[in-house]
Amino acid sequence: MATPIPSHQRIVPGSVNLPPYPWPATAKDTSVDPVSIAESVTSKLNGSLSSGDFASISELFIDNGFWRDHLALSWTPRTIKTSAAIADYLSSSPTKLSSVQVDLTSEFRKPQIASFAPGGSPDVKGIAFYIKWGTSLGTGRGVARLVQEDGEWKIWTMFTCLVELKGWEEKVGARRELGVEHGKQEGRKNWRERREGEQKKGEGEVLVIGLTIAARLKMLGVKTLVIDTNEKVGDNWRKRYHQLVLHDPVWYDHMPYLPFPEHWPVFTPKDKLAEWFEFYAKALELNIWTSTSLTSSKWDEGTKTWEVKVNKGGREERVLRPKHIVLCTGHSGKKFMPDIKGLSEGVFKGLAVHSADFAGAKQQQEGTERKRKAVVVGACNSAHDICQDYYEKGYDVTMVQRSSTCVVSNKAALKVLLAVLYEEGGPPVEDSDIWLHGWPSEVMKSIQIDLARIQRKMDEDLLEGLEKAGFRTDKGVDEGGLFMKYLQRGGGYYIDVGMSQLIIDRKVKVKQGEEIEELVENGLRFKDGEVLEADEIVFATGFMNMRTQARHILGDEVADRVDDVWGWDEEGEMRGIWKESGQSGFWFHGGNLALTRYFSRVTALQIKARLEGLGA
Amino acid sequence: MATPIPSHQRIVPGSVNLPPYPWPATAKDTSVDPVSIAESVTSKLNGSLSSGDFASISELFIDNGFWRDHLALSWTPRTIKTSAAIADYLSSSPTKLSSVQVDLTSEFRKPQIASFAPGGSPDVKGIAFYIKWGTSLGTGRGVARLVQEDGEWKIWTMFTCLVELKGWEEKVGARRELGVEHGKQEGRKNWRERREGEQKKGEGEVLVIGLTIAARLKMLGVKTLVIDTNEKVGDNWRKRYHQLVLHDPVWYDHMPYLPFPEHWPVFTPKDKLAEWFEFYAKALELNIWTSTSLTSSKWDEGTKTWEVKVNKGGREERVLRPKHIVLCTGHSGKKFMPDIKGLSEGVFKGLAVHSADFAGAKQQQEGTERKRKAVVVGACNSAHDICQDYYEKGYDVTMVQRSSTCVVSNKAALKVLLAVLYEEGGPPVEDSDIWLHGWPSEVMKSIQIDLARIQRKMDEDLLEGLEKAGFRTDKGVDEGGLFMKYLQRGGGYYIDVGMSQLIIDRKVKVKQGEEIEELVENGLRFKDGEVLEADEIVFATGFMNMRTQARHILGDEVADRVDDVWGWDEEGEMRGIWKESGQSGFWFHGGNLALTRYFSRVTALQIKARLEGLGA
Repeated sequence: MATPIPSHQRIVPGSVNLPPYPWPATAKDTSVDPVSIAESVTSKLNGSLSSGDFASISELFIDNGFWRDHLALSWTPRTIKTSAAIADYLSSSPTKLSSVQVDLTSEFRKPQIASFAPGGSPDVKGIAFYIKWGTSLGTGRGVARLVQEDGEWKIWTMFTCLVELKGWEEKVGARRELGVEHGKQEGRKNWRERREGEQKKGEGEVLVIGLTIAARLKMLGVKTLVIDTNEKVGDNWRKRYHQLVLHDPVWYDHMPYLPFPEHWPVFTPKDKLAEWFEFYAKALELNIWTSTSLTSSKWDEGTKTWEVKVNKGGREERVLRPKHIVLCTGHSGKKFMPDIKGLSEGVFKGLAVHSADFAGAKQQQEGTERKRKAVVVGACNSAHDICQDYYEKGYDVTMVQRSSTCVVSNKAALKVLLAVLYEEGGPPVEDSDIWLHGWPSEVMKSIQIDLARIQRKMDEDLLEGLEKAGFRTDKGVDEGGLFMKYLQRGGGYYIDVGMSQLIIDRKVKVKQGEEIEELVENGLRFKDGEVLEADEIVFATGFMNMRTQARHILGDEVADRVDDVWGWDEEGEMRGIWKESGQSGFWFHGGNLALTRYFSRVTALQIKARLEGLGA
Repeated sequence: MATPIPSHQRIVPGSVNLPPYPWPATAKDTSVDPVSIAESVTSKLNGSLSSGDFASISELFIDNGFWRDHLALSWTPRTIKTSAAIADYLSSSPTKLSSVQVDLTSEFRKPQIASFAPGGSPDVKGIAFYIKWGTSLGTGRGVARLVQEDGEWKIWTMFTCLVELKGWEEKVGARRELGVEHGKQEGRKNWRERREGEQKKGEGEVLVIGLTIAARLKMLGVKTLVIDTNEKVGDNWRKRYHQLVLHDPVWYDHMPYLPFPEHWPVFTPKDKLAEWFEFYAKALELNIWTSTSLTSSKWDEGTKTWEVKVNKGGREERVLRPKHIVLCTGHSGKKFMPDIKGLSEGVFKGLAVHSADFAGAKQQQEGTERKRKAVVVGACNSAHDICQDYYEKGYDVTMVQRSSTCVVSNKAALKVLLAVLYEEGGPPVEDSDIWLHGWPSEVMKSIQIDLARIQRKMDEDLLEGLEKAGFRTDKGVDEGGLFMKYLQRGGGYYIDVGMSQLIIDRKVKVKQGEEIEELVENGLRFKDGEVLEADEIVFATGFMNMRTQARHILGDEVADRVDDVWGWDEEGEMRGIWKESGQSGFWFHGGNLALTRYFSRVTALQIKARLEGLGA
């Protein structure tokens, strides 16, 4: 019998668990001028690029260096490791990098001496700087990190990400629309009439199920239609559990083109977020059919076109012929319910629902003879929020934690995990994203291991208190903490906003480490024989792989062709999402608001490139 | 018989026509360090302020210098002229300025050599810099301009505006709300429930009829209720004429706290603006009762409280007891219809409406035997837009211009009048507002005279073409162009977005300089005897003084007590608006989006000061 994988090491099945990257040696000379060193390295790179001397490029990198490339040199996100592989990658690219420039446009972007290991032990000093670059097809940005090897400054990590395609630059700032066509135009329609016309027509090269990528596509001039089964945009958030407030702070959550304003609360309540989405769609003039569901779909390999039937508002069947479908329904999709005896048979006489269907706890009257009992199965964000809601409304509450949870206090999440990049007065969010995604995943893991160590120190009392109360905490995959759990497993953590103290104070009970045997008439029976009485049971047991969404919406044929989603591939790029899915013309998009912000551009640019036949 | 005032010199009756300020001499030494000069003057000022030596302060100013003060030293906006008066003003202020600092936080704000006269002839060089200051009550910003007199650098204009009150700092940026209260709270409501509760309760210290000031009051922690007779927020814009698009560009139009995003069109169509207002109210969490009208009001001088009855949604009567009422219905109020014989009697058989009620021209079929005839009375923005709409829909169109119009091409408005301060990539709008409002009105007039001269040069062909086509243009009050017409008269201009060419090309006819005698069955008869046939007549004759709105909404007793609104008082501050109206607890607020942005803070701070008993 194989040893089971411990809970903290669990990752999405089939994904690659890349090890942490061993820190390079710290630079010996740190009283140098980082700008001139950056300029010198960049100039050598440009020289080799223009002469096509790719072998000499590899000499600019340390042996185990990286080039992470989001669409500068190929039409799919890549992370290339080793100097030899980098030379191969550059030489075989159909697109030629023509000029890499050191970005001197702000203090934050300028070359500077940086300490790369946040733990400080070892201290890994080097030089970091932002770059701008161009090819015949587009322009982009990136970040480079240099380390010193035998006295010589070499590239440790290089990152290039495409920002704009030539000829399809986004209409923002100096390129914004005029809003009115001056001079006479006979028979002209006003803005409302034009918008209503587009909205009604609804034709599109791309059909989006969800929302978040539609704005990026619109800015690239791609005709896009969004369909949403809900009555109103944002309802997928409105319908979530009563007390839901985002666990990520506003600085990390900005959406593209319409940043949250200065007065926006740090943590956005779900209904407020729903309102924002609703307005976002209007402000960006996205074409959306609500109360609309996909009824059938068929891919024609010959014409590379989908034939999609949708039911619009329960009244009208419409046939659409998009070239691409993007599924970005995120977590609002297929719920994961554990297969427990008695659940489907309705043996249990109380209320048993998935967290996605949980309407909120009802206020109990004080002094009632018998407190109503609530049991929440699960021990991550939703489970905690729901327990807290029950407790505050006067229930007797028990959380069922079957394995272990990575717990991070809200304070540590802000001050340790997100600080510097995403905080009040921090750098522009576009710069922060480039800094973050500019790390290859292996190095990101090393960074997160350092940060998680600092975080656990800050959260020492909390974590000890939880353990004493019988709640089991863990350190995450390879001790990488919350971020690694999120990226490699897609769950398994709680960002504490108050519930942990209720556990520590024994106000909410924990049933730990035992699997549920079956539901019985008045509660749950565990494998150890204990029966936990319950009037209400909520299964905060998460959601299934996004691939199941494809099956649900597009059928088996498509679902069988698409790759698994989430977790790393061999290069540390995320699997199946933000890139071709395995089924031509079909894409997954999603993640938290921050990942969605960055990767919506990566995905939209890939789709645009394919629509324009740019060698994809 | 008195000579009638020529049209271009007409100003709001009762307002003061301050003359342009004669340019001071240019500085002799311009290769000086502006920072050290600014620091030196500021340090002398601080010294005199702290020792209470107000006489020595007057020596820091030129004799005819200004101190414009928006709430630093008194609770009403003031412009003090002459160095002697400035010393008096400072010495008699109950609040003491404690520290004036040179603002070095950005290149734009830093002291620099500036050319004050935009025409460049004479060239008036001096030093300009932004300041920050504090008193025991609050903190603020401002701008100072120095000129050199007999070799000595002296203050020509000083401007102080209050930004924040101590103890009631706005909850933005580092002071934003958390959005969630961590830890347990028994019986807690979620965000939606709290918002719905506030909205329903609707109690407030301030009742706002309109919208734009409510956000500022909210940020100051003032409980505020907005009532709106329309069904939906923004309907006052939706209901305006079909082709309406803002004539001011996006850079000038930003609203407080929620700037228009980077992709926003330069000129906002009315329905898009309406959507923005609707969302704005939600994003700022303003409490608004729509479909609600005021039915009666009574001021109690003893308790300094209003008793206001409103009809909510046609279903419910509610009694409110606010301490203050702010009327900011702007142009959506009382229309001005000329008193023309036959109009009220219904002699004319076609359609005759005010521009506010004009639904838009109907598309005419080509090849119809007889073109429908439209006559538009008026020659300013709305009249032009409506003529253009009629023309584009296939009508035979005549514009009736009774006097003259100040015409500025859209291009010149952007490139000459608004450039530098309000343009793509320009300074932060808060800085631009301080620069602009930091000018005393007399100097502003001198600046506008220079700018208008440059503008007319740029628009030479346009203006000549119009004159040749029988359309009469003018240069505005004292040749101050569009801005002076707007500030001193509140109308009388057209920002050309295409209609002028239709006049120049004789595609839209002009009936110039003749008063209308009466409406007849088939059109209008002029005093010269000519009858102009019409199927439709639109009176784009503007709106009445805001005071008429007070009469309409609050009755004669209040209206008789309030001052006239708009145009300058003896100091060049605007009359009756953004300050006490003459009736305690009653305020006017309004203007274009840009004025509203700046003065909403000035007005809200005055109201807050009165509510808190801060010596007002």
